[in-house]
Amino acid sequence: MKQSLFFIPTLKEAPKDAEVKSHRLLSRAGLVKPAAAGIYSYLPLGQRVMRRIERIVREEHDKRGCSELLMPALQPRDLWDESGRWSDYGPELMRLKDRKERDFCLGPTHEEVITAIVRDHLDSYKKLPLALYQIQTKYRDELRPRFGLMRGREFVMKDLYTFSENEEDLDFWYETMKEAYTVIFERMGLETRIVSSDTGQIGGDVAHEFMVMSEVGEDTIAYCTECSYASNQDFSGLETGDACPECGGRSETAKGIEVGNIFKLGTKYSESMNARFTGRDGKRHPAQMGCYGIGISRTLMAAVEQHSDEESILWPKEIRPFDIHILPLADEHVEKAEALTKELGSSYEVLMDDRSERPGVKFKDADLIGIPYRVVLGRSLEEGKVEFVDRYRGEKELIPIQGLREHLENVID
Amino acid sequence: MKQSLFFIPTLKEAPKDAEVKSHRLLSRAGLVKPAAAGIYSYLPLGQRVMRRIERIVREEHDKRGCSELLMPALQPRDLWDESGRWSDYGPELMRLKDRKERDFCLGPTHEEVITAIVRDHLDSYKKLPLALYQIQTKYRDELRPRFGLMRGREFVMKDLYTFSENEEDLDFWYETMKEAYTVIFERMGLETRIVSSDTGQIGGDVAHEFMVMSEVGEDTIAYCTECSYASNQDFSGLETGDACPECGGRSETAKGIEVGNIFKLGTKYSESMNARFTGRDGKRHPAQMGCYGIGISRTLMAAVEQHSDEESILWPKEIRPFDIHILPLADEHVEKAEALTKELGSSYEVLMDDRSERPGVKFKDADLIGIPYRVVLGRSLEEGKVEFVDRYRGEKELIPIQGLREHLENVID
Repeated sequence: MKQSLFFIPTLKEAPKDAEVKSHRLLSRAGLVKPAAAGIYSYLPLGQRVMRRIERIVREEHDKRGCSELLMPALQPRDLWDESGRWSDYGPELMRLKDRKERDFCLGPTHEEVITAIVRDHLDSYKKLPLALYQIQTKYRDELRPRFGLMRGREFVMKDLYTFSENEEDLDFWYETMKEAYTVIFERMGLETRIVSSDTGQIGGDVAHEFMVMSEVGEDTIAYCTECSYASNQDFSGLETGDACPECGGRSETAKGIEVGNIFKLGTKYSESMNARFTGRDGKRHPAQMGCYGIGISRTLMAAVEQHSDEESILWPKEIRPFDIHILPLADEHVEKAEALTKELGSSYEVLMDDRSERPGVKFKDADLIGIPYRVVLGRSLEEGKVEFVDRYRGEKELIPIQGLREHLENVID
Repeated sequence: MKQSLFFIPTLKEAPKDAEVKSHRLLSRAGLVKPAAAGIYSYLPLGQRVMRRIERIVREEHDKRGCSELLMPALQPRDLWDESGRWSDYGPELMRLKDRKERDFCLGPTHEEVITAIVRDHLDSYKKLPLALYQIQTKYRDELRPRFGLMRGREFVMKDLYTFSENEEDLDFWYETMKEAYTVIFERMGLETRIVSSDTGQIGGDVAHEFMVMSEVGEDTIAYCTECSYASNQDFSGLETGDACPECGGRSETAKGIEVGNIFKLGTKYSESMNARFTGRDGKRHPAQMGCYGIGISRTLMAAVEQHSDEESILWPKEIRPFDIHILPLADEHVEKAEALTKELGSSYEVLMDDRSERPGVKFKDADLIGIPYRVVLGRSLEEGKVEFVDRYRGEKELIPIQGLREHLENVID
């Protein structure tokens, strides 16, 4: 892919409202661009990372028996009246009227819609379990949108809903998804901590959050110094003394960015919206529901926060937008760079900086946008050599161009 | 994939408002489900076909140098005031206010947003051309939503925008995309006709539509019996007599479903929104723009319309949701069917009907949902045989189960 066509509008200066490092980098590296407060466009490089994140999420859901669907963002009021949330939800719920003055909202979440879809077909326990997810755009009219993708008003989420015959099966799905989320964030190169949490506007009994520990996080977490116990509740009481009597650990507090959450909804929606089935006992029961979210766009931001310094991103393996960045340092090297792009393109995802820019600009942009392997075509081409840079290992060396392909096969992971 | 988990809620009866065959089949085969008038959820089978359609669209755009981005649905009024469309656009534009009473619309199209993105970085002709597309949800408050996905209020589109230095380069992209669209619809198994059209609310000078010829189409097309000329304009004058004097053909009229459109926008948006660059002559010029849409959800409907009879769909190769449908006819065959699903799953996309349903129900549903190759496990299993059905060729035969894999390799295309 030629960089000139790929549109990576890097910036020298971050926008003034960019208070945290990842927000500054998302803007400066040309990953996102605001359309209004808390509303962003994902430019090609940002969208490419988003698609990598989505692929991992899809793979790990599909292999566990979940099925993908797509629900609308525009939701009719009648469904929200059924659940009671039309009146319960505050001004964060974006509401509008259609041309016939009927009320709609822009969904911040889809419990109502999915429950309405499933209930019509839920005649018997034989139809259960169901585990249905989507990757879709959500809305939340934040009072103070800030921190880039962290507190946005339009954002991309994966949301999964499970329907079970009984609590035991709900527990099974809950534990399955807890494990799936652990794998998903590990694959993305994100260090997360599982935190017991309250259930908020979603409702239900039990909930956990997946937190990326970060000084710029919006949530405060209390965690035990000895065991894996962590919570977003009652942390003030835990600040001193024992966090968990059995392990004898002390409580510490830290900040976290919430990238995922899982809820045991129980029968909150299936009772109010009448999603019932005939059980093995011949009686009617409301389905036991769970819901499980991952903030796709927020994960993009958390990944930048964890894998960067102030002047450069370094993408983790599975979400890197390209494998190799080819930099011809002068116009006369572009032809050779094009041939190399074509050759390596059969095995790797390659971006080639074909712009007529000074070497200093190219290097600075390349550091900023964060592709881990780099091939530099400069003066050493006269000796038949290119510079190969492995940013993961922090190593660079001159490689004879005819040995490059073999070298890459050994080095690129 | 087990059918019980995949959630394909087939219906015996189509909804009363389903006036056309594809709408009836989309509902009956469990592909979509309405949430409100003109607003649909895409259930797993429908979403899977949508993802196939999207993959083809992405491949054909990426290989022609286009780059994918993602713009927001929620668009601030100020951009639409700049282009003049906030007042020009009628009640089809869905408008809303945020909690601070600022005006927004839900985008039916993204000329304003993309122009605002590009203009800040368009210092010189060296930054051109740009060809940026997205696959995204769009809104249009239709007065009378009908015909299922054909005239919806929330729908999925691919929209591409090109920015060129001059008209010659715009012409290049316009012809490139005309060719790309031809390939895209061919790959989807759709027979389309290119129709010269008016430019409507998008604006610009030249436009063409890609039409799937169909008796249920909403648009009337005048076409020449001898050459490829077709138009949606002035067809009444062409109804009798010569369509094109040079070829001597006569004009006929037909109905079509619009699945794609391409527009030469020229400088309509780049002038009003000030997207200018310094040209080779050192002077400032507005960019020459083009825009190019494909209705992803509407294409799904058109494919069903063209590839079905009243009781069954038969998916074209590249957009089929699965390759093989395995039908164990009794519960005692399910174990063998599971083993076969696993074995064939390494080479093919396989759906297996594990439901406890009568054979009649399974066959009827299988015809309805339209997977082209079928393996039936029934009584002939006792002789070590399965029935293999090739719905493309309309053939069925008994195959020894140990020869099945080899048989599939020869037959499946």
